[in-house]
Amino acid sequence: MIGYAFMGATHSQGWHSAPRFFDLPVKPELAVLCGRTADAAEAAAQKLGWAEAATDWREVVTRDDIDVVDVCTPGDSHRDITLAALAAGKHVICEKPLANTVAEAEEMTAAADAARTNGVRSMVAFNYRRTPALALARQLVADGRLGRIHHVRADYLQDWIVDPEFPLVWRLQKDKAGSGALGDIGAHVVDLAAYLTGERLTGVSGTLQRFVEKRPLPTAASGLSAQGGGDGQQVGEVTVDDAAAFFGRTESGALATFEATRFATGRKNAMRIELNGSEGSVAFDFERLNELMFYDGSGPASEAGFRRIMVTEPDHPYAGAWWPPGHGLGYEHTFVHEIADFVRDVAAGRDPSPSFEDGLYVQRVLDAVERSAEQRSTWQELR
Amino acid sequence: MIGYAFMGATHSQGWHSAPRFFDLPVKPELAVLCGRTADAAEAAAQKLGWAEAATDWREVVTRDDIDVVDVCTPGDSHRDITLAALAAGKHVICEKPLANTVAEAEEMTAAADAARTNGVRSMVAFNYRRTPALALARQLVADGRLGRIHHVRADYLQDWIVDPEFPLVWRLQKDKAGSGALGDIGAHVVDLAAYLTGERLTGVSGTLQRFVEKRPLPTAASGLSAQGGGDGQQVGEVTVDDAAAFFGRTESGALATFEATRFATGRKNAMRIELNGSEGSVAFDFERLNELMFYDGSGPASEAGFRRIMVTEPDHPYAGAWWPPGHGLGYEHTFVHEIADFVRDVAAGRDPSPSFEDGLYVQRVLDAVERSAEQRSTWQELR
Amino acid sequence: MIGYAFMGATHSQGWHSAPRFFDLPVKPELAVLCGRTADAAEAAAQKLGWAEAATDWREVVTRDDIDVVDVCTPGDSHRDITLAALAAGKHVICEKPLANTVAEAEEMTAAADAARTNGVRSMVAFNYRRTPALALARQLVADGRLGRIHHVRADYLQDWIVDPEFPLVWRLQKDKAGSGALGDIGAHVVDLAAYLTGERLTGVSGTLQRFVEKRPLPTAASGLSAQGGGDGQQVGEVTVDDAAAFFGRTESGALATFEATRFATGRKNAMRIELNGSEGSVAFDFERLNELMFYDGSGPASEAGFRRIMVTEPDHPYAGAWWPPGHGLGYEHTFVHEIADFVRDVAAGRDPSPSFEDGLYVQRVLDAVERSAEQRSTWQELR
Amino acid sequence: MIGYAFMGATHSQGWHSAPRFFDLPVKPELAVLCGRTADAAEAAAQKLGWAEAATDWREVVTRDDIDVVDVCTPGDSHRDITLAALAAGKHVICEKPLANTVAEAEEMTAAADAARTNGVRSMVAFNYRRTPALALARQLVADGRLGRIHHVRADYLQDWIVDPEFPLVWRLQKDKAGSGALGDIGAHVVDLAAYLTGERLTGVSGTLQRFVEKRPLPTAASGLSAQGGGDGQQVGEVTVDDAAAFFGRTESGALATFEATRFATGRKNAMRIELNGSEGSVAFDFERLNELMFYDGSGPASEAGFRRIMVTEPDHPYAGAWWPPGHGLGYEHTFVHEIADFVRDVAAGRDPSPSFEDGLYVQRVLDAVERSAEQRSTWQELR
Repeated sequence: MIGYAFMGATHSQGWHSAPRFFDLPVKPELAVLCGRTADAAEAAAQKLGWAEAATDWREVVTRDDIDVVDVCTPGDSHRDITLAALAAGKHVICEKPLANTVAEAEEMTAAADAARTNGVRSMVAFNYRRTPALALARQLVADGRLGRIHHVRADYLQDWIVDPEFPLVWRLQKDKAGSGALGDIGAHVVDLAAYLTGERLTGVSGTLQRFVEKRPLPTAASGLSAQGGGDGQQVGEVTVDDAAAFFGRTESGALATFEATRFATGRKNAMRIELNGSEGSVAFDFERLNELMFYDGSGPASEAGFRRIMVTEPDHPYAGAWWPPGHGLGYEHTFVHEIADFVRDVAAGRDPSPSFEDGLYVQRVLDAVERSAEQRSTWQELR
Repeated sequence: MIGYAFMGATHSQGWHSAPRFFDLPVKPELAVLCGRTADAAEAAAQKLGWAEAATDWREVVTRDDIDVVDVCTPGDSHRDITLAALAAGKHVICEKPLANTVAEAEEMTAAADAARTNGVRSMVAFNYRRTPALALARQLVADGRLGRIHHVRADYLQDWIVDPEFPLVWRLQKDKAGSGALGDIGAHVVDLAAYLTGERLTGVSGTLQRFVEKRPLPTAASGLSAQGGGDGQQVGEVTVDDAAAFFGRTESGALATFEATRFATGRKNAMRIELNGSEGSVAFDFERLNELMFYDGSGPASEAGFRRIMVTEPDHPYAGAWWPPGHGLGYEHTFVHEIADFVRDVAAGRDPSPSFEDGLYVQRVLDAVERSAEQRSTWQELR
Repeated sequence: MIGYAFMGATHSQGWHSAPRFFDLPVKPELAVLCGRTADAAEAAAQKLGWAEAATDWREVVTRDDIDVVDVCTPGDSHRDITLAALAAGKHVICEKPLANTVAEAEEMTAAADAARTNGVRSMVAFNYRRTPALALARQLVADGRLGRIHHVRADYLQDWIVDPEFPLVWRLQKDKAGSGALGDIGAHVVDLAAYLTGERLTGVSGTLQRFVEKRPLPTAASGLSAQGGGDGQQVGEVTVDDAAAFFGRTESGALATFEATRFATGRKNAMRIELNGSEGSVAFDFERLNELMFYDGSGPASEAGFRRIMVTEPDHPYAGAWWPPGHGLGYEHTFVHEIADFVRDVAAGRDPSPSFEDGLYVQRVLDAVERSAEQRSTWQELR
Repeated sequence: MIGYAFMGATHSQGWHSAPRFFDLPVKPELAVLCGRTADAAEAAAQKLGWAEAATDWREVVTRDDIDVVDVCTPGDSHRDITLAALAAGKHVICEKPLANTVAEAEEMTAAADAARTNGVRSMVAFNYRRTPALALARQLVADGRLGRIHHVRADYLQDWIVDPEFPLVWRLQKDKAGSGALGDIGAHVVDLAAYLTGERLTGVSGTLQRFVEKRPLPTAASGLSAQGGGDGQQVGEVTVDDAAAFFGRTESGALATFEATRFATGRKNAMRIELNGSEGSVAFDFERLNELMFYDGSGPASEAGFRRIMVTEPDHPYAGAWWPPGHGLGYEHTFVHEIADFVRDVAAGRDPSPSFEDGLYVQRVLDAVERSAEQRSTWQELR
């Protein structure tokens, strides 16, 4: 595993728990955790339960005793690490967004395609697809229960940088993160819209917004929290968007609206997606991740209503591996499911999903939104 | 009152109830209900409690015993009726949208301005402003409780025409209604965004969508329901939008997103608006009209959360006139409040709010959205 | 109408609105409002829209031009007024609880039975039965959609007297009100449990609680609000319960739990009732009166969930007379429906429901709870 | 660890995860899993990640390399195992309910008291106390934010045996489980009421109910699911309650109501508890375990409302060890927290909480409910 911060912690929990709750054909061994500084990597390996620590990812990805490389670094190093790992014949999981630019993502997708011919597998880690409620939503759509999809309505709302004194962490720097709310959280809902509908966008129009231009430099940071500042502190320029709004159309003509922001005061991790079809609707909010709202329009109107399905039944996706109905799961379980699926696919010689090509598609959408924003929101065709 | 359909019924209830629950300086008399066919107008006058019926609005608006003209017709006749009524020195309430075109709205606003100098008052009937929860939201914003506004998120979702066999009622015809979801329900959220923030949009980018192109001609219709069809039925062309999505920016730089649709299966009258500011947020859904969600970010994060205020306390806007806390109000009460405010303002020689000029502003936004939609969603400046 | 306070206002609105929204065979005339003091009665008649005012109910109930007597006074006068009205051959609506004692209720029921043989009708005004959502719940139960009922769970939670300085209004005095939370609001849920299940309780065990023993005497009061106090104020003894908890069993063996309290801080009018059956469940909260939660257990478990039915569809009980779907109703509409049903029944020569005998049943349950509370909660059989 | 079924799995996850997310002074080693049959125990040890398996708990609890014994068996073996373990000087975690009878619980508590003098620690595993939202609720109460507590309202609603064909698992047999819904889930809410208020009940009145008398014998079972039956199947008698309802009073005079049932169709794991105090209220539902509803009555009534606190902030109990705000936790995390607290307490030489004596108190309440149910619900004092 390369990287050990927020995503390193979630992936580690995924690797640990997957074999204890899912019947996997092979039992993963947590071999090496790789970070830039030896002490920090060593401490992280101890804490997160990896056998050893290393500081040179180039060496790690070519080691004979390594079968899988799990890339949990910021987006600016995804290209180099994955290309090296794939070239060395290692199966790869890469955190999202796949890359910071379309060009990089294309290169990585080409490398993944080439590696596939040698039986080397790759996956981009859009973990939210493995939320049981969203996997159930996908089943309902695929089974035709929603009919023709008219609307996709997807917001990803957070509020962790509303305070202008919140420091300038790497996620607010374009060279490291590629973009701001757009690429960090907007990417998730773009992916989910495609996953749930089974359709891609054919064009978009969008706008980006920055509310705070300068922030104090950070003195410490982890996950989505950080410290910094004090009087006389140094400040730096925010170089990414704070919020993004865009709309598009899917292949079949559904109208899709999107918003991603880190300035929605009071919304902590409100990844919300709703689909309205000719026969029914589904609605989801990650702040209530164990619930799917489903409106079945096929019965009499007098009995219809959004029903709150507790997605914890034995025959719900993933849920049977865990606890009895009503005993909910949490955020980290999306990673356990992701790892379990990945291990099974690799062992079975199948391509895991979502592929790098799926990640490239998301990158193209984000890129089109940025271009639209630069051109007075003019519509940008995709492909 | 001119017109007696859906809006005629709501306004009538407003005129009846206002003096029984609010202390009004004058007691309104429900003099004449005016419709195109004598029998139907007569029956409506009986049912809705008006003293007499008439068929010629031109005559009614000049009668000496008439002080107020309440225009409840479709948008295509608003201009003619209001101009005549204002010219005759009658105070006017006009249903929204103010007109079907910007040019008409400008003409009407000019007439209202001219009439005002003679003490003649006019109001456009954006009734939702008088929802107690939204009036409370306005107070919170005006008191600075939300700080600087970053986001406005406004959807108006209905589903009454998802069925492609639903007939071609007047609301689906451009010559009568001006536009579809955009002008009918989008107009409400454009007005509310301005009302709640106290700011107008400076530009917009948008798109319109039609999902069903042809529909059977109606045989009967009332409110938002209708009958029609059967085999061998005649069909006609839908000439308005089924859905609209747009975003804009307010004067102070807030990002505002809007969606209006009649195809959101399962959403019956989900007029939802959320504001996120630097200090707090409010969120509202008309399907739960007695509740305002308020997030106060000024306290410790560990105690913060969206609180569900039951807007039924004696010191909440309008609520003190009604029942004890928790004994909720309904849709029609927004009209009772509107009439009560209008009567008080007219009696006091004050201009009621929202003015025709407020209606003109909404019209300009709708027009800009339509222009943007025609020009590949390119940004349209307002004024 | 005898009485003109809180219930007088709601009933007046019912009498005014019923003929404008429902097709009634006769149009009610609001003839006389009767109160103890001439000035106050006159003002109330003006405000509430009654043709004249009177102060002597004994005279009013025998007037030839009166057909219906609507009793909106506190419980201590119900017996005298209804007996006189029935004896005079007037149809009677009597507010709940029917009486302050079982003996009175028995006498009134006997009088209603006798009057019925002369075509004189009577009804006890459990208005909540006419909430569309609860009428729909009754339909679902009656249609067998819940199967065998196992559980009834009914709470009526308010908080208007949590403050110990809230004055000693008549609802807190046993000689006027009969009992406290038990008879005022507990009565509603006892009635609803019987209405929804179609079954009565066969026995109960309960307890009563008083949290505040003395309160300042009131200087002014209306509805559920009042003023009083200041330093050196006079205090009086609270002689009713502040809260009641009890459980019982229905004829078919369902376990029913009840709680009624005026000390549930933050719960304004949370009349909540849930039924769990072998095939499904319903749940309701008056704070969201336009919604019924329905769990249909007949489909696959993976798609089951409590669905939020917006009870505003044209074919929902009462809803078709009002506004389009999603445009909610309020508290007062329960009274409009009650009056409409009463007028129709009287005109058709049918007995309206709930009958005085239904009111007597509720009285017997309340009485059994009080007896149980006095006898260390020992179970009390109900005939 | 003795036992490896549902609770064995949750405790194992607790032992594995606790040291990776919490800074523990010692790192637990998962030494031996003990079960009755060798093959099954071996398989469970593999799956749940224990170093070895064993079949004789008497031998295991005296092994020198064992420091802690974690008792995850049904209630009928709790006494024997814990007494042996404590006698051998092992720290003990015992699943709830502490025992199947008060006499056993008293014996165990005496043994725990004796062992404590030798530095041997013991805890009863009421895991729900470690739900972050409930730990936060406890803080609010302890800080006086609710004022004087007037009401406790606690329901634990499940529906897993509504189907009369669901088999006769051990939880439905009195000799193994002690009681039914009362002891299995009612025990949790009795404990939580004491934990949250800091007060115990002084008396109770209750009733028990069985809806299904005979069930097919099971052929396989795990957690709360099981198979059994088919035609010609053998049936057995259900010997425990299906549902329990009771009310009581706390030391300070609060009225507490309780219901526990496995027949609440549609309620999967609805452990709901609400406290109403003179200054505020809290409400919780385990089906939304990351949320605490808090009503702060100290501000103006016009701004008061139940606020939904996402209990995922860094300074919320336990939450700081996990993910960023809004990224929720699940059921199993209550066990991780429990183990982390236990390990810290044992290492620090502190008594963990809740103690066996706390478990004994719960047992006494359950016993008093049973006695009341047998004596026509007559009130039973609790010392």
